[in-house]
Amino acid sequence: MELKEYLHDRSALVDQALDHWLPGEDLWPGSLHQSMRYSVFAGGKRLRPILMMAASEAVGGTAQQVMHAACAMEMIHTYSLVHDDLPAMDDDDFRRGRPTNHKTYGEATAILAGDALLTEAFRLLANADANRLIAPATVLRVIELVARYAGSQGMVGGQVVDMESEGKVIDFPTLEYIHTHKTGGLILASVQAGALLGGGNEEQIAALTRFGGAAGLAFQIADDILDVVGDQTELGKDVGSDQARGKATYPALLGLAEARQRANELCDIAVESLTPLGTAAETLQLLARYIVNRNS
Amino acid sequence: MELKEYLHDRSALVDQALDHWLPGEDLWPGSLHQSMRYSVFAGGKRLRPILMMAASEAVGGTAQQVMHAACAMEMIHTYSLVHDDLPAMDDDDFRRGRPTNHKTYGEATAILAGDALLTEAFRLLANADANRLIAPATVLRVIELVARYAGSQGMVGGQVVDMESEGKVIDFPTLEYIHTHKTGGLILASVQAGALLGGGNEEQIAALTRFGGAAGLAFQIADDILDVVGDQTELGKDVGSDQARGKATYPALLGLAEARQRANELCDIAVESLTPLGTAAETLQLLARYIVNRNS
Repeated sequence: MELKEYLHDRSALVDQALDHWLPGEDLWPGSLHQSMRYSVFAGGKRLRPILMMAASEAVGGTAQQVMHAACAMEMIHTYSLVHDDLPAMDDDDFRRGRPTNHKTYGEATAILAGDALLTEAFRLLANADANRLIAPATVLRVIELVARYAGSQGMVGGQVVDMESEGKVIDFPTLEYIHTHKTGGLILASVQAGALLGGGNEEQIAALTRFGGAAGLAFQIADDILDVVGDQTELGKDVGSDQARGKATYPALLGLAEARQRANELCDIAVESLTPLGTAAETLQLLARYIVNRNS
Repeated sequence: MELKEYLHDRSALVDQALDHWLPGEDLWPGSLHQSMRYSVFAGGKRLRPILMMAASEAVGGTAQQVMHAACAMEMIHTYSLVHDDLPAMDDDDFRRGRPTNHKTYGEATAILAGDALLTEAFRLLANADANRLIAPATVLRVIELVARYAGSQGMVGGQVVDMESEGKVIDFPTLEYIHTHKTGGLILASVQAGALLGGGNEEQIAALTRFGGAAGLAFQIADDILDVVGDQTELGKDVGSDQARGKATYPALLGLAEARQRANELCDIAVESLTPLGTAAETLQLLARYIVNRNS
C-alpha cells in the first residue's frame, strides 16, 4: 500500500464528512460558523480520524461506520488548537501558515468557536448510531471515553500542567504527564473508539489500547523533535518556538538523540501490540511508523 | 407545597451530587479542579436541574433518575457564565457578589475550566443510564438535544448574536433570537430531557416542550426586568449593567410595563401547556410562577 495516497484519500473522506456535518456559513450566526470552518479546514492531517478508521478496520469494522465519531474527534482536536492559540494561553499569531482564529475573527468569536466545536463534537457522537450498525450502549461507552480523555483529567488537564510548567525546570514524570494527557490521550481515545465502534472484542480492544498509548506518546515526542529540527515551511510554524517559550520537551530534557530513541522504542511497542490482530492491522503498523518519521 | 423549602431541598440534593461527581481538588491538576468548583459552587439557584427533576416527576419518573443529566446541565450553565464573564466577552469582575473566575484564577485557567466543565457535562450525560433504569437510546437522544441547544445554533449562537448586537439598535426578532437561544434553550432542554429520561410519552413530551419554550423565554424577560428594577444585594451584581453596556433587552425595546405583561403572558402559556399532565405537574406550575416573580 502506498501510504501517501492512502492518507490523501482518507483525509479527503474526512473533509467531505466534516463539510457535510458542520453547520453552514449561511446559518445564523454566520460569523461563528465561518470561524469554526476556518479552523477545521486549515489543512490538518486528519490523523486522529484516520487512526480511528484504521482501528475499526483492524477489528473487522469499516471506515464508514466510525465516520461520526472520527469527525467529532477532529472537531475536539481543532477546538483545543483554537483555545491553545488564544492570547491568554500560547498567544500564537500563526498556525499552519495562516493567521490563528482569534487573529482573524477576534478573541471572543475564537473562544465561542472553540466552545461550539466541542459541543458539536458531542452532538455528532450522539448520532454515531444513525446507521443502526452500532448499539446505543456502545456509543455511550465511546462518548464517556472521549469525554474522559478530553476533560479535566485528560487533555484540558495536560494543557493546564503544560502552562503551569512554562519557564520552569520540570521532572520527567511531569513531562510525561503533559505529553500523555495533552496530546497522547486524544490519539489513544481515537484508536479505542475505533476498536469499540468497529465491533472489536475485549482482546482486540486491549491490544489497540496498548497500541494507542504508545503511538500517542510517540507522536508528541516526534512533535517535540520537529520543533527543534523541522523545516519551517513544512511545519507552517516557527521552528524553535517551544524552546523560545521555555516549554518542557523531550529533546530539552533528554537530548535529541535519546528523544529519537525513545520515539522509536515506543513505535516498536506500538507495532508489537498489533500482533494479535494479524494482517488486518497492517495499516496501523504503517501509521505508527509514519507518526514517528513524518516531517510536518 | 412550600416552594421556598422545596427549592432549598432540591438545590441541596443537586449540590451534593455535583460535589460527588466533580473531580476533587486533590486530583491533578488541582488548580483546574479548584477553579471549576469555585464557579459551580458560587451560589447558583440550580433552576435548570430543578426544572429537569420536576419534569421527570410530571411524567411519572423520579428526581433521582435524572440526576446525572441535571448536574450536567448545571455544569453547562456554569461553563457558559465563566466564558461570558471573560475580558474578551462581557469583561465582568463580579458574579453573585464574588470575583469572577478569571479574576480569581487568571484568564487561561478560566477558559480551561469552562472547557473542562462542558466536557465533564457530556461525560456525566454518557453515564445517565448508570442506574439501568433508562434505555441507552434515550440517553443518546438527550445528549443530542442538549448539544443542539448548547451549540452553535443554540446557546453559543445566542451569545454571538448578543455580542454582535451590543450598542446597536436591533429589531424585535433579533432580540427574541438572542433570548430564546442564549438562555431559553438550555431551560427548554432541561425540561425536555427531564420528560425523556422520566419516561414521558410523546404527548407528555410535546406538552413539556411548549412549557419549556414559554418558561425559558419568560425567565430571560424577568432577568431583563430585574436588571432595571432589581435589588443589587439580592442580585449580587450591578443593577443597570445591561443598559450601561448597550445591551438589547425587553424593557429597552418594549418599555417596562409591556415587558412585564409579556413575561406574565408567557407564564400563563407555560401553565396552560401543563393541562394534559394533570396534578403531576403542579410543581412545574409553581416553578413557572416563581421564574417570573423571583427577585434574584
